[in-house]
Amino acid sequence: MLDFYHQYDELLSEEERRHVEATREFCTGVFAESVLASHVAGEAFPAKWIAAWAATGWLGLQAKPAHGGFGASYLCKIRVAQEMARHSFATAFCLNHHQGGVTRLSQTGTPAQIEQLLTPALRGELLLTTAMSEPGGGSDVAALTTTATPIAGGWSLNGTKAWLTNGMMVGGLIVLARVQDAGGGGGDIASFYVPLGEAATVRRQEIVVPGARSFRLAEIAFADHFVPEWGLIASPGTALKASMASVNAARVHVAAMCVATLHAALCEAVAYCEDRHAFGKPLVAHQGLRWELAEVSVRLEAANALVFRAAEQVQIGGNPVGLAAQAKKFAVDAAIWGIDQCVRIIGATGASAAHRLNMHLAEVRMAAYADGTNEMLLDRIGRGLPSDYRD
Amino acid sequence: MLDFYHQYDELLSEEERRHVEATREFCTGVFAESVLASHVAGEAFPAKWIAAWAATGWLGLQAKPAHGGFGASYLCKIRVAQEMARHSFATAFCLNHHQGGVTRLSQTGTPAQIEQLLTPALRGELLLTTAMSEPGGGSDVAALTTTATPIAGGWSLNGTKAWLTNGMMVGGLIVLARVQDAGGGGGDIASFYVPLGEAATVRRQEIVVPGARSFRLAEIAFADHFVPEWGLIASPGTALKASMASVNAARVHVAAMCVATLHAALCEAVAYCEDRHAFGKPLVAHQGLRWELAEVSVRLEAANALVFRAAEQVQIGGNPVGLAAQAKKFAVDAAIWGIDQCVRIIGATGASAAHRLNMHLAEVRMAAYADGTNEMLLDRIGRGLPSDYRD
Amino acid sequence: MLDFYHQYDELLSEEERRHVEATREFCTGVFAESVLASHVAGEAFPAKWIAAWAATGWLGLQAKPAHGGFGASYLCKIRVAQEMARHSFATAFCLNHHQGGVTRLSQTGTPAQIEQLLTPALRGELLLTTAMSEPGGGSDVAALTTTATPIAGGWSLNGTKAWLTNGMMVGGLIVLARVQDAGGGGGDIASFYVPLGEAATVRRQEIVVPGARSFRLAEIAFADHFVPEWGLIASPGTALKASMASVNAARVHVAAMCVATLHAALCEAVAYCEDRHAFGKPLVAHQGLRWELAEVSVRLEAANALVFRAAEQVQIGGNPVGLAAQAKKFAVDAAIWGIDQCVRIIGATGASAAHRLNMHLAEVRMAAYADGTNEMLLDRIGRGLPSDYRD
Amino acid sequence: MLDFYHQYDELLSEEERRHVEATREFCTGVFAESVLASHVAGEAFPAKWIAAWAATGWLGLQAKPAHGGFGASYLCKIRVAQEMARHSFATAFCLNHHQGGVTRLSQTGTPAQIEQLLTPALRGELLLTTAMSEPGGGSDVAALTTTATPIAGGWSLNGTKAWLTNGMMVGGLIVLARVQDAGGGGGDIASFYVPLGEAATVRRQEIVVPGARSFRLAEIAFADHFVPEWGLIASPGTALKASMASVNAARVHVAAMCVATLHAALCEAVAYCEDRHAFGKPLVAHQGLRWELAEVSVRLEAANALVFRAAEQVQIGGNPVGLAAQAKKFAVDAAIWGIDQCVRIIGATGASAAHRLNMHLAEVRMAAYADGTNEMLLDRIGRGLPSDYRD
Repeated sequence: MLDFYHQYDELLSEEERRHVEATREFCTGVFAESVLASHVAGEAFPAKWIAAWAATGWLGLQAKPAHGGFGASYLCKIRVAQEMARHSFATAFCLNHHQGGVTRLSQTGTPAQIEQLLTPALRGELLLTTAMSEPGGGSDVAALTTTATPIAGGWSLNGTKAWLTNGMMVGGLIVLARVQDAGGGGGDIASFYVPLGEAATVRRQEIVVPGARSFRLAEIAFADHFVPEWGLIASPGTALKASMASVNAARVHVAAMCVATLHAALCEAVAYCEDRHAFGKPLVAHQGLRWELAEVSVRLEAANALVFRAAEQVQIGGNPVGLAAQAKKFAVDAAIWGIDQCVRIIGATGASAAHRLNMHLAEVRMAAYADGTNEMLLDRIGRGLPSDYRD
Repeated sequence: MLDFYHQYDELLSEEERRHVEATREFCTGVFAESVLASHVAGEAFPAKWIAAWAATGWLGLQAKPAHGGFGASYLCKIRVAQEMARHSFATAFCLNHHQGGVTRLSQTGTPAQIEQLLTPALRGELLLTTAMSEPGGGSDVAALTTTATPIAGGWSLNGTKAWLTNGMMVGGLIVLARVQDAGGGGGDIASFYVPLGEAATVRRQEIVVPGARSFRLAEIAFADHFVPEWGLIASPGTALKASMASVNAARVHVAAMCVATLHAALCEAVAYCEDRHAFGKPLVAHQGLRWELAEVSVRLEAANALVFRAAEQVQIGGNPVGLAAQAKKFAVDAAIWGIDQCVRIIGATGASAAHRLNMHLAEVRMAAYADGTNEMLLDRIGRGLPSDYRD
Repeated sequence: MLDFYHQYDELLSEEERRHVEATREFCTGVFAESVLASHVAGEAFPAKWIAAWAATGWLGLQAKPAHGGFGASYLCKIRVAQEMARHSFATAFCLNHHQGGVTRLSQTGTPAQIEQLLTPALRGELLLTTAMSEPGGGSDVAALTTTATPIAGGWSLNGTKAWLTNGMMVGGLIVLARVQDAGGGGGDIASFYVPLGEAATVRRQEIVVPGARSFRLAEIAFADHFVPEWGLIASPGTALKASMASVNAARVHVAAMCVATLHAALCEAVAYCEDRHAFGKPLVAHQGLRWELAEVSVRLEAANALVFRAAEQVQIGGNPVGLAAQAKKFAVDAAIWGIDQCVRIIGATGASAAHRLNMHLAEVRMAAYADGTNEMLLDRIGRGLPSDYRD
Repeated sequence: MLDFYHQYDELLSEEERRHVEATREFCTGVFAESVLASHVAGEAFPAKWIAAWAATGWLGLQAKPAHGGFGASYLCKIRVAQEMARHSFATAFCLNHHQGGVTRLSQTGTPAQIEQLLTPALRGELLLTTAMSEPGGGSDVAALTTTATPIAGGWSLNGTKAWLTNGMMVGGLIVLARVQDAGGGGGDIASFYVPLGEAATVRRQEIVVPGARSFRLAEIAFADHFVPEWGLIASPGTALKASMASVNAARVHVAAMCVATLHAALCEAVAYCEDRHAFGKPLVAHQGLRWELAEVSVRLEAANALVFRAAEQVQIGGNPVGLAAQAKKFAVDAAIWGIDQCVRIIGATGASAAHRLNMHLAEVRMAAYADGTNEMLLDRIGRGLPSDYRD
């Protein structure tokens, strides 16, 4: 039997393969039971796991070795995330968002930012995430309303950011905001590192998604919140471009996690249907059910192959705009549909919080909102059709 | 504009139309806000509403007037359930399960059963539900393992029933069990009214479904639990037949509630897309989104028309086995798919517990397990094809 | 077993039911074999059948009794078409297009039009159809380019009409054209009865659709073709409105024929799967296949119920714009998908011209283009959503 | 922009890439116009092209160089077929069936077979194809009824084979038949090379599939037809195994052609939607249509990636039973659905024989029957699930 991930693993270094293997071992067993227990209790996964990840070095998976990171490749990061997503899509997602902040700090941070933030971030003592969406906003960047007004020693931040992964735990945000020019003319979008601390100028509130509290989603509002001068990451007019540059990698990464969670769900459903009997034979011996499971496997394999092709292009520095959007669209659709099929195939049991498939479905559904909804993706793909499909 | 429910309403009596209208008024406003607030808090709907329904007389909607009921028709019961399902599928489902018990008592109960149970049941002081499924069981009746052993003055009940609607609140169950014949020969399936009380011989545990706690689903285990002689409802060998006789009506009823909840969800999504703007115009003015909503409406209308046709047959005493199964299959699929579309169309907002669409989706998903899964329905329909589709 | 068409038949008069019954008898047997034989030979159905229909009076089904018609209702016309569509979608479609012209003549024709055209049309000696589409055109009326220039005694017609049903046989067309006003100002759209004859100013060419030649589709081009004064049907500025008024009825009619053809296809596939054996048992005993057939039946019943609801509204004079579009969208999708499923379920046999399912699929596919493509329908439905789905 | 076939092309040799490039040049232009003209006329593609392919050497693409072949790899053969399938799925399919016979002769033929058959086969003077299916049969090998009875100097063949590609032109068949053992014991399945010639013991009849006559499908019946001793290919009991060994490669090959035809169809539809205008702007500027095209591209890319992964496994000698079945299931579904979408998106124009999309759809539909229907594939995949999806 062909290993499901062989296309990726053939392109990893020895050391990278060890990271993947270590993640696989880490995530099986106690960790898997722990995240499921939290789900059953209607709570987020225990924060202690972040420290455990820090101890293994995964928080700095792509950070520079000079900074204490592993300097791993994009494909390696995907595989690590997949091994975790087999057991918990949400924790893999949270890890990835923090990793993104760490990698960015390590690769493009100023000396001041690196000095103040990198060590606690690598230790998991300071969690990071990027804050772009706003409550009203969706994906229309023109509608972004958060403002940063220059004041002595920095900026004064006003506005509200929503749908922040890890939002209930993060200590710092990378915020996109419009810079107000006292001189008059139009402001423009910049990005800032924003320390949160216990400031009274920050109000944080959980966005509860039933069954998916492990994302610790939050809305965070700023009222004249102070951002120090050293927090500037991208100057007015450059932040969006930097943000766009990473969107292909982000989309393919989410897609790859969806594939892994769907794969795990199918394995679980198949095992269930081998064990359970109805009408005198194992469920899997009933042809109708067997065909339903087979169709899930068909789309799973298509998703896996497509996502790999897109990931390989990101890895080699291609700019696979269309392919990344297509991979995300297909993988998210396949995962939500496929896990739902698995849940329904195994019957009411799969609908209870006590069953891992219930958790997988609730968590993977959030992938539909990250890094472009289906509608945004279709429009993106659609605009590229004339150049991408030309005989 | 044609009223969405006109096919039903044309067949109701004046008085029945007043019940429907009263339900519509009751459910709008405070009730709707209350059930949503419970959802946001991750709790079941407040039990106080049951007393309020009792006060209106809905608990006995189909009970005989001589017993204090309204003697309403099947179509009227459907319309009452639909008006409630527009705001809360789960509460409409719970109401219906209790109504089912009350109607049965009134129509076929023994004098002893009527005397002891009907008044508290009509007042909502004693909640009832039917207990057929078992933890391992699914829909394979041959696998039913709960036993009732004849003892002095009644039976001793052993076994576990699962997926009981209202299960955390019910005071009495209608239980299907195999009667053990001390004399040797094979036992057979009978049904009993089983008082629960505070007996130590009963163990009750919630089955948590994230986002759908309003069903108050429970598993209830019996260990040598005493069932009094007057509790016998259907003698050994007759219970399954009685149970099958009502399955068409139950399937169409669930289907009709799905239609109502999907209709409410589409109205809500359309209103949202009229109000919210992106890229300089209302969401509904974006052609792609508009087509997605239009497709939801297409399947909604198909579901509405099909379910009505099946309901009309139940009402006139036809035995629409195939049609009832087809209506349930189609309406459940349409509702789950369609509400999911609505949730995704309005963006991440729809995924949070705070939004009614999130509640609708979580609750309507449970319809897939009630009264026959898709797989059971397809098999039922399939076996009837040669006689139902003959040129 | 419930008759598939009972909802319609309950609303027909005694006499109308006899028309339906007569059609059923007529179409079974020789007629059915004849149209299939033509399909196998790659030819259109024999023209002789039109005379046979004339003899039964169906060509004037809705014409006024004073003109020799039956004055039948819309629902009766649908049922007659359905009985024919069970055996041949294309011939039912051709009959309907001619009936449409006849009905229009009888109900709104001028005395001159009635005198010259009605008798040969009722006898089937003069076939009629409406000509709206143009080769470049699609459904964008603003792009209509055919012109009618006033000249002595009538108009001079220039332009090309395409996708004309019966086009290779029609003797007269009802043409929409822009009237050129010599006086200068903008012309506007009028409609004309246009005799074709053997005129050199008319060029007619078949549009071949493999497997669907029975529609006798043609493109007809006019070069200074003379239209007599008495041919005016709708004055400039009124033709489009008249055309729009009938579009709901036309959409529901096509949808109803799709339902009938799909029903026939499912019956045929089920019979096949009862007769044929594989791996030691009848095909229908294989659960996977049985579920596939069952799913076809589910969507068929939904289509039937939805189309009936829309048809009933047309019959009572409602203006079911949204419902008619929804019914057509759903029924066409269901028929194309469902017949395709039937073809594939019975294996390669179903793909050969010799099999009736192959004919059904090729012919019913054309329904997607008549009276509004899916895209036109979705847009139409979409624009009505805010008023149609308001809580 | 990434080349659509880059994953394949990176694995080809220089020489193989030249074959692909030559095929691309050959198929564009005159050839493409010729096959479309045949389609419009309702005829099969001109037989002269086979001689042209022979001249280029493609008939022996995988034959041994010692026999005058190119000795090309499996991936190269796929790419050659894809370049042809972009213009004509049916001719690529016919070429492939003949190539299969030639390759088999070259690799495993007896000296007598090679001597008598290989040269005319390489020249295209003798066309070959494999004959397994029978009229009643489908894919249930146990139902195979053709018999070969040993007689002096060979065998006497009786039975009927159906669905033979190139069937109206082939001069020789590779036939699977049960060998009748005069000695008594049970016969078993062997395979034979069967010369057809003008023998009176052979009756050949076209199976007409409207729009797909280029496959030249035929049913061929044998009545005491003589098969010479040197015609034995696989001895009784070994033929099925040999046949099964090649089924993975065959499935993936068909899937790869589907991908190419769908790719060509999408390119054609996109170009059409750029050129044509409606309501004042190009079709592709209408968001709804653009999203429909985008969704086609999503599934096309998924199919392409999945098929490549399966093809790579065949190439390296893996035994990708599940993957090959999954790839065929997905690619066939994607192609039939996707080309149908393209046809419908461009409107009625796409439905006429004169449009290449119409030909693509009619031809690619036949892929659903070759080398395993969806039902056979789902069952094959289903039986492998427990071993293929094990955590």
